Amino acid sequence: MSILDDRIACPHLRERIKTTREVLPYFKDGMTLGWSGFTPVGYPKAIPKALADHVEKNGLQGKMRFNLLIGASVGTETEDRWASLDMIARRWPYQSGKNIQKGINSGRIRMQDKHLSMFAQDLLYGFYTKDFGGSLDLGIVEASAIKEDGSIILAGSVGIAGEIIHTAKHLIIELNTTIPSYEGLHDIVLPEPPPHRRPHMICKVNDRIGTTYVPCDTDKILAIVESREPDKGRALGATDEISERIAGHILDFFQAEVKAGRLPINLLPLQSGVGNIANAVVGGLVNGPFCNLSVYTEVLQDTMLDFFDSGKLEYASATSLSFSAEGFERFYKKWDDYTRRIVLRPQQIANNPEMIRRLGVIAMNTPVEFDIYAHANSTLVGGTRMINGIGGSGDFLRNAFLSIMHSPSVRPTKSDPTGITCVVPMVPHVDHTEHDLDVLVTEQGLADLRGLCPRDRAQLIINKCSHPAYRPLLQEYLDRATHECLARGAGHEPHLLDRVFRMQQHLATHGSMKIGSWD
Amino acid sequence: MSILDDRIACPHLRERIKTTREVLPYFKDGMTLGWSGFTPVGYPKAIPKALADHVEKNGLQGKMRFNLLIGASVGTETEDRWASLDMIARRWPYQSGKNIQKGINSGRIRMQDKHLSMFAQDLLYGFYTKDFGGSLDLGIVEASAIKEDGSIILAGSVGIAGEIIHTAKHLIIELNTTIPSYEGLHDIVLPEPPPHRRPHMICKVNDRIGTTYVPCDTDKILAIVESREPDKGRALGATDEISERIAGHILDFFQAEVKAGRLPINLLPLQSGVGNIANAVVGGLVNGPFCNLSVYTEVLQDTMLDFFDSGKLEYASATSLSFSAEGFERFYKKWDDYTRRIVLRPQQIANNPEMIRRLGVIAMNTPVEFDIYAHANSTLVGGTRMINGIGGSGDFLRNAFLSIMHSPSVRPTKSDPTGITCVVPMVPHVDHTEHDLDVLVTEQGLADLRGLCPRDRAQLIINKCSHPAYRPLLQEYLDRATHECLARGAGHEPHLLDRVFRMQQHLATHGSMKIGSWD
Repeated sequence: MSILDDRIACPHLRERIKTTREVLPYFKDGMTLGWSGFTPVGYPKAIPKALADHVEKNGLQGKMRFNLLIGASVGTETEDRWASLDMIARRWPYQSGKNIQKGINSGRIRMQDKHLSMFAQDLLYGFYTKDFGGSLDLGIVEASAIKEDGSIILAGSVGIAGEIIHTAKHLIIELNTTIPSYEGLHDIVLPEPPPHRRPHMICKVNDRIGTTYVPCDTDKILAIVESREPDKGRALGATDEISERIAGHILDFFQAEVKAGRLPINLLPLQSGVGNIANAVVGGLVNGPFCNLSVYTEVLQDTMLDFFDSGKLEYASATSLSFSAEGFERFYKKWDDYTRRIVLRPQQIANNPEMIRRLGVIAMNTPVEFDIYAHANSTLVGGTRMINGIGGSGDFLRNAFLSIMHSPSVRPTKSDPTGITCVVPMVPHVDHTEHDLDVLVTEQGLADLRGLCPRDRAQLIINKCSHPAYRPLLQEYLDRATHECLARGAGHEPHLLDRVFRMQQHLATHGSMKIGSWD
Repeated sequence: MSILDDRIACPHLRERIKTTREVLPYFKDGMTLGWSGFTPVGYPKAIPKALADHVEKNGLQGKMRFNLLIGASVGTETEDRWASLDMIARRWPYQSGKNIQKGINSGRIRMQDKHLSMFAQDLLYGFYTKDFGGSLDLGIVEASAIKEDGSIILAGSVGIAGEIIHTAKHLIIELNTTIPSYEGLHDIVLPEPPPHRRPHMICKVNDRIGTTYVPCDTDKILAIVESREPDKGRALGATDEISERIAGHILDFFQAEVKAGRLPINLLPLQSGVGNIANAVVGGLVNGPFCNLSVYTEVLQDTMLDFFDSGKLEYASATSLSFSAEGFERFYKKWDDYTRRIVLRPQQIANNPEMIRRLGVIAMNTPVEFDIYAHANSTLVGGTRMINGIGGSGDFLRNAFLSIMHSPSVRPTKSDPTGITCVVPMVPHVDHTEHDLDVLVTEQGLADLRGLCPRDRAQLIINKCSHPAYRPLLQEYLDRATHECLARGAGHEPHLLDRVFRMQQHLATHGSMKIGSWD
């Protein structure tokens, strides 16, 4: 028996094994597709690539366009290549890759980004398919095994795979035989729609409330296709001094909060975004004074393996294993050791306000920039150009026990190593409001904003977080805005609306945000 | 036995009955105070007024200043008068009154507004008192009775009264003898801090999970003061044609959603803000086709009594009875009939994301203005001048099944009856993001934004919601911004940052937002 047959415990489903070539006719221009996958692990690989080859070979660019709904980003060899072949009409709710971003920002691809927990439930409610026949035409789901009754054992991520299997009119399963069966790692639950919803009884990060498989109506399965392409999630960037300093400020803050009695000695469950700063924070925890820690987050990166190995991390809950190729090797080598301390949940559960608030998660994420009153821009450079999407940052930052955003104070431009300040008078796009953020951190320092009015927040953020090259400019803005607005009795949150985006305009024309003055 | 004695079932607490004059010495300059009360019902009246008289009579303005933490707004005869006597140093998280707003916007009073559900829990965590000794110095709570063991039966609102009784170092109880004992109306629960939190087992709006009283350490009670001042919440404004038309659009939308199978025939629990539009929507439901409805909201206004009387509203959950004087009369007359269908909860529960999402609440609120991409400003006129605060709008709109904002399309200025457009290119302050709002409505029409990318949303909002006097201007903005941003590959959400607030600037100088052109 082949590995593939062996993984399909349901005999009559073995008869639906097909090649990638055989499933191509199922795809029609204009279809609404749902894929499994999350930042980029557990997504279908063989079929999207075969379809892209087909389009390319036959000059079908622009003639096979799809609405593409995926829990978050997937590998660039799929969605980004599809974008380069003009195969994407619409993309919800998060994406990654230069070509897809180019398509979105030049108006060829329509995208809406939405909080990831809400995207999953709104998909179930039919909000995204109401203008396209009411449900997904076709779902493609990567699986690691199929059970005797046809229910699906997912692979390295959950995301919206459960919602897809439940709602799609038809399904194609990509069964990945290069990975082991992940049976036991997932905790699958598909909440009922209101008014029939029940509480999610997760009170500790390791509580399980669901099944290890996704129930599946096998009549919907058109085909099972073998995939031999392993996942490779995000490789870690090199550590850098800026990130280390930011992590240092955060760890000092944790220690002070423990000392003040506002945090338990083992902290509270941690959510940490992706990127160098997040990795430096985890690195700091690996070497730091806190023990018996837990993680309730979206994705687990390679640093989490170090965190487990240090003995300091007890348990991690996420929706995706976003390990590098090397990380997956480490993971498979100590499979039993790691998997008894990890659970993968649907993104509707991993990112759910209910659990984030109940568990008291400490949320840490990196924005594009934040402003002196503590609004943050996570999605649109210059207020207009989409990067990836809001992802789960809003789910976590709105509901966390402590909402922390960390960023370098400046970024380089081609002509100026400190040409962009990440602390601005007003962000040109708001994803997180002043009502959500507790703490802002740069390598310059940490601003604890809890209980402060906007003007006090602004002074603290300028003092603690801004780069010296921009501090006088920001101070002048605050002083002038305060003077002018208080004088006319409109100064709760002072601004000079006629000049507020001058730094951004200067950047567009001069390659630096260092304006001469506010006059 | 006096009514007062009769209401205090705990014998040794009767010995702590004092006059307002006798409690004045407990108040010291610089104290951090917590009051009960919520939009404006259930707040202490006798003591705040007596203290204001004391300050006024003795010329103590500016010499007795307090940090004032209250669940939401309270009667203007208390907080607003205190502001006029310079008795408020800080005010969290919501307020009401001309003098307090003047104090805030001229820099004399520090205010931070925060989502009301989160404010309550962050108060328990000590986030607001960390710089002021770690807890409230003194709590003043309006009660309708005291039980034999000293536990407190609250009055017409819950708000943060439970948190105050739990955390304040000392308490003064104002026992209101002009109202009946409200025993049985409240459902009090004080969530444990993480990591010990449990799910809130509310699965229907009428589920009860707590007690009818607030447990109280009687050692903390310094005094019990009788109050003879009845509540009077908000009187309703007269209905107007604009509000009726907005309500009509919303009711049509509900009918279409029921028909499409996306809403049950009895809808889902309704949250409705305050004001004319909210009242018109409830009025429409009173006369509309839907039955067996329920409400999960913050405050109940007079129209809810009509709603009950119509037989169409089954049950309402809120944190405050914000009835007018006349409304309270109606309420007391049919006490048994109404109170078996009402529960008052702490604002931490009434506004909790967990229940709002589980129950699938339909949220409806009025902003100051919204923009063409569906960001809304609920707090700061012109981006700088505070009105009341964000209140619970973010709690509901972020987590609702359907998030609806309704507004007239224009407002008058002194010189121009349509001088202000409520649909602008970019709001100068964002309280609700494009990731949160599903539906925008004005008297012009309703824009269903679900599943649309920003440019499609903008076109729909301009077409459906904007006033004809501004439609060509907004269209020109969108067209020019789109042209310019797409050309440079940065057009996911097109904007002209150098001109984006020109309408607001024009208003400040010309009394109208009707700019000549975007050149």
